[in-house]
Amino acid sequence: MDVFHLFSLIGTIAFAVSGAIVAMEEEYDILGVIVLGLVTAFGGGVVRNLLIGAPVTTLWSQSLYLNTASVSILVVFFLPIAWIHHWKKTEAFFDAIGLSAFAIQGALFAVDAKLPLNAVMVAAMLTGIGGGMIRDMMAGRKPLVLRDEIYAVWALAAGFAIGYGRFGSTWELLTLFAFIVVFRMLSVQFKWKLPRRSLRSNQGRPEKGEE
Amino acid sequence: MDVFHLFSLIGTIAFAVSGAIVAMEEEYDILGVIVLGLVTAFGGGVVRNLLIGAPVTTLWSQSLYLNTASVSILVVFFLPIAWIHHWKKTEAFFDAIGLSAFAIQGALFAVDAKLPLNAVMVAAMLTGIGGGMIRDMMAGRKPLVLRDEIYAVWALAAGFAIGYGRFGSTWELLTLFAFIVVFRMLSVQFKWKLPRRSLRSNQGRPEKGEE
Amino acid sequence: MDVFHLFSLIGTIAFAVSGAIVAMEEEYDILGVIVLGLVTAFGGGVVRNLLIGAPVTTLWSQSLYLNTASVSILVVFFLPIAWIHHWKKTEAFFDAIGLSAFAIQGALFAVDAKLPLNAVMVAAMLTGIGGGMIRDMMAGRKPLVLRDEIYAVWALAAGFAIGYGRFGSTWELLTLFAFIVVFRMLSVQFKWKLPRRSLRSNQGRPEKGEE
Repeated sequence: MDVFHLFSLIGTIAFAVSGAIVAMEEEYDILGVIVLGLVTAFGGGVVRNLLIGAPVTTLWSQSLYLNTASVSILVVFFLPIAWIHHWKKTEAFFDAIGLSAFAIQGALFAVDAKLPLNAVMVAAMLTGIGGGMIRDMMAGRKPLVLRDEIYAVWALAAGFAIGYGRFGSTWELLTLFAFIVVFRMLSVQFKWKLPRRSLRSNQGRPEKGEE
Repeated sequence: MDVFHLFSLIGTIAFAVSGAIVAMEEEYDILGVIVLGLVTAFGGGVVRNLLIGAPVTTLWSQSLYLNTASVSILVVFFLPIAWIHHWKKTEAFFDAIGLSAFAIQGALFAVDAKLPLNAVMVAAMLTGIGGGMIRDMMAGRKPLVLRDEIYAVWALAAGFAIGYGRFGSTWELLTLFAFIVVFRMLSVQFKWKLPRRSLRSNQGRPEKGEE
Repeated sequence: MDVFHLFSLIGTIAFAVSGAIVAMEEEYDILGVIVLGLVTAFGGGVVRNLLIGAPVTTLWSQSLYLNTASVSILVVFFLPIAWIHHWKKTEAFFDAIGLSAFAIQGALFAVDAKLPLNAVMVAAMLTGIGGGMIRDMMAGRKPLVLRDEIYAVWALAAGFAIGYGRFGSTWELLTLFAFIVVFRMLSVQFKWKLPRRSLRSNQGRPEKGEE
């Protein structure tokens, strides 16, 4: 349970900071920064609990997480701009930590609930990318996680590793955690991309549904 | 129950394909295509279950649906582009099948839960259009279902027909299913539109809330 | 309980009207106007119930609310355009009523559920701004509530006042309700803004995640 809580806490801070930075990029006010930070930090978990059938209300008893996330957000808000710009370069790093922590946590939840392997993988992925998707949608952006450098695959991989039953002890989970972070960062560094196929053949014309 | 499951399966495939195509139009990568396809296919059902009070976790025991949706999405992703462009013309047809199947399924769920007529209609509508709405929001588009050719009305009509108690047997439901598909396609073909009233009098100026 | 229901009803009408007006600004058809109106009116409550652990299905037994919201939306849709343009100037007023009513209602719910003070505040805020956030996201806009004149703070303040236990009787709640409305309107009138810090230093370049 310790590692479990540790992952939750690390992921919460990482996503709270990432949400706060996106909100500041979108010129939201301080409360908007707090809301987007909190929603990014807790949105993934809420979606996971809803999908896993776990009670959502546990959210409110997690004062430690709520307070830690709030403090992290406020620290980011009041940092000197130069520091934040420096930090932005490491935004991908924090996001990678959040991705890895939440994917593992989501997979552990799903294994606890005795769900089959494919459900564990989906739960890991949705928990890992859920916060970022909600963050981007609330910031009026297209979810980066769906088209960025290889991202959700690493959450899927965490789900597979845990769902397949090969990673259970604390040290195995920590190793898995580090692996996911490293591979996500390598993806960013070397711009690894998943294959894609564009249907945008009619480039000159405005698209249906956009303005 | 058989028809019930058949409708679920048809709707799942239709919406999975429609989500995959939208994701490819938005240049999402292969995992983004899978995620958007799955969310489109299952998002409507999850929202319906949440609103109806049915357990969301049944999602995970539906291996048949999850696998069918995944395979459909991968088939679309690897089809020759020319085929997809051809298919896109029939996108409205698949979407119509999904709309009809999910609207009926949502209405049957609500009737099972002994909800009153107006709730059955709303449940039918939300289940029918929910997947498409989430799909469009996750693709950074305005939900087409709210402003396109007559769309949600047909889901409402299915809800009314079933909630009013006139359609219960397998054959009646299949007839209703076909009717909804046909009328949705007629709406597209003849560009039937519902009345609307625009408040956009200040066309030259950028709008509040948009950039 | 009476005041509780009164606040629900006032907030429902106010948010239904605000959602309908936004939908008309976005050129949605009549059903889109109804859907956006209903989602704005009930979305905040659904999100609150999910987060508070209250059953969402109570929605369906609230015929009074559903019918009142539907009638309000239809009235707005068929009003003369000139009236609506006049009304739009008072849009902020209706939105303020909805904000205040829903924040108080959300806080009372959370107090009923014996949640701690910080959870009561978050519940008040999410209930108060939830409908507007969903409304804006479904209209393809960035949530105004996160960057507009001081908005969510007043919902937080209502949560604090109620969670702290100083406002419980009917008259105290009505006074609080009026206070929140007045201060929200003063924020709009005098363009009170919360501090913000922009990270948009690269104004000339298109931003990551936008097109």
